[in-house]
Amino acid sequence: MRYPHADLTEFTTALLRHVGADAAQAAAMTERLLDADLLGHRTHGLWFLSNYLERISGGHIRTSGEIEVVHREPGAAAWRAHRLPGAWVLGEATALLLDDVRERATSTITIADCSHIGCLQSYLPPFTERGLLVQLTATNPGVASVAAPGGTNPVITTNPIAMGIPTRGAALLIDQCTSVGSNALFDDYAARGERLPGEWLLDAAGVPTDDPAVLTGEPKGTIQSLGQAEFGYKGFGFGLMSEALSLALTGYGRRSRPNRFGQGVFLQVIDPAKFAGSTEFLDEVDHLVSTVRADPGRDGRPPRLPGERALASRADQLRDGVELHPDALTRLAPWARRAGVPLPRG
Amino acid sequence: MRYPHADLTEFTTALLRHVGADAAQAAAMTERLLDADLLGHRTHGLWFLSNYLERISGGHIRTSGEIEVVHREPGAAAWRAHRLPGAWVLGEATALLLDDVRERATSTITIADCSHIGCLQSYLPPFTERGLLVQLTATNPGVASVAAPGGTNPVITTNPIAMGIPTRGAALLIDQCTSVGSNALFDDYAARGERLPGEWLLDAAGVPTDDPAVLTGEPKGTIQSLGQAEFGYKGFGFGLMSEALSLALTGYGRRSRPNRFGQGVFLQVIDPAKFAGSTEFLDEVDHLVSTVRADPGRDGRPPRLPGERALASRADQLRDGVELHPDALTRLAPWARRAGVPLPRG
Repeated sequence: MRYPHADLTEFTTALLRHVGADAAQAAAMTERLLDADLLGHRTHGLWFLSNYLERISGGHIRTSGEIEVVHREPGAAAWRAHRLPGAWVLGEATALLLDDVRERATSTITIADCSHIGCLQSYLPPFTERGLLVQLTATNPGVASVAAPGGTNPVITTNPIAMGIPTRGAALLIDQCTSVGSNALFDDYAARGERLPGEWLLDAAGVPTDDPAVLTGEPKGTIQSLGQAEFGYKGFGFGLMSEALSLALTGYGRRSRPNRFGQGVFLQVIDPAKFAGSTEFLDEVDHLVSTVRADPGRDGRPPRLPGERALASRADQLRDGVELHPDALTRLAPWARRAGVPLPRG
Repeated sequence: MRYPHADLTEFTTALLRHVGADAAQAAAMTERLLDADLLGHRTHGLWFLSNYLERISGGHIRTSGEIEVVHREPGAAAWRAHRLPGAWVLGEATALLLDDVRERATSTITIADCSHIGCLQSYLPPFTERGLLVQLTATNPGVASVAAPGGTNPVITTNPIAMGIPTRGAALLIDQCTSVGSNALFDDYAARGERLPGEWLLDAAGVPTDDPAVLTGEPKGTIQSLGQAEFGYKGFGFGLMSEALSLALTGYGRRSRPNRFGQGVFLQVIDPAKFAGSTEFLDEVDHLVSTVRADPGRDGRPPRLPGERALASRADQLRDGVELHPDALTRLAPWARRAGVPLPRG
């Protein structure tokens, strides 16, 4: 079943407006949620919209108030977003960085207490399309699902790190959590009552398991760091980098035991023109891309580059319609009824 | 066998001076090499000194000339180091960043064509000791040993990424390559004719193997990215981040097919005081550290934090003498003879 992108946009906007989002907030949230579906990240797309509607209705995502500027200087800013909608806040932050970087080599912003921002990959193209390098990491200090190496207590979470790298062709859009998978992935398996394809989790005693139910048991199990038993200390190391940048630097971490509705965000833009030069940068990245593509591949298929499948999925779905998570519209039906908005037809 | 740190310092300095390093260069290289041994990274310590002596003698590390400033603005610099000694160049870069960050939130430098800098971890304390967060990545565009996921051609190398995170106690000193191990690690196994503890490599056909000889065979095998078969695309993604920051941004990448003697470096300092505040930063990091330490551990030992073992090793060896790689002095004996310098006695 495929849905026209324009219909989904109209539908999503109407539901968000109905629960109280203003026009700019609804537009930003709609664009980012649909972008996640377009890029193929269905657990971060319309499937998640019902959570947003609930959170706005419950006051956990706020639709009024201002972003608080904690610090501002040329090339850097620290904001506290007071749980305004993540997609909208990131849009404002992106505009600030793009303006800042006209005059300088880098600009960096941290955001405390931002509502859920969703799929990181979707925030990278506004930078890469302008030839700019961008680093983004975000995490949720109210969620703990990953233990330190050798440990059993969940102390951090799946902490994604993203980077957009411009090329003369399609940008490299890296977006990966520092554990073997995201919380949403395991929630999705648990909801379907399915086992995982591998022993990606640890039970409460630290024994590897493929059962997603350990994450909701008591005592709780944990998600393995990237690298698992042998090299999980490295995945955890990358997870700590995300904690430092997106939580400690924003002053919004686990110490204050926040609820699960706010995130910390670190976003940094770098202009290659103000280091060794844009031409040199693109020459090098294009060369690297071409060497990867020249690999015949172990199974006769050249290796894929980060973002390649996502951008192909985006182009395909904009043309032929958007596929949704099978449960997305079921979850949204009660909200649509309440708002008097018809469900989109495939 | 343990050697007094002061004796090793005198010995190392004398050998470097004998081949032509000036006093400042020799001091910086000596400090960094010995730091690697102190921190327990013996393949990057005095074991490597014979390589430096060879390279200086062969003109591959240069001891005269100037760092070329490609770009400079407040808060950013791009240098070309023309293969001046890496440890000395990084010392100059550190001084520049520390000066820059007095007045602003971040400062970033890229360095093209820098001689080997060695152990990344050793460059972090000058920042963390001042309460500053630091990111460092460096790689060698003349070495290829890691394939893209699903591929067999080596296209990047083991690309370490490091971050120093200040705390009120010992700093977190993260330094990890984005593959399962470093080139030096596998060279060391190969030199000893030993198999690896696991199937950490791929042979030329892409089949996992524990034989380090595949890395020097023809056609060459490759080192697996962090995450290996299932999740190696993530390790490779982190490897690409390092390529973008330390090679593309410096304009010194694989396109120009450089020889194996130059590295690209990306170094960035961030002052937490100019985001949400130093106190808030330290409160959050200290809290995270304490939650990790509160974990009893799967095997009854609390998890270790990055840098913890290294800093303990450093303190221990400064007190009781430095242990060296078993082959370090054997490799240095001919150089010591030529320079008329006695070998240190344990």
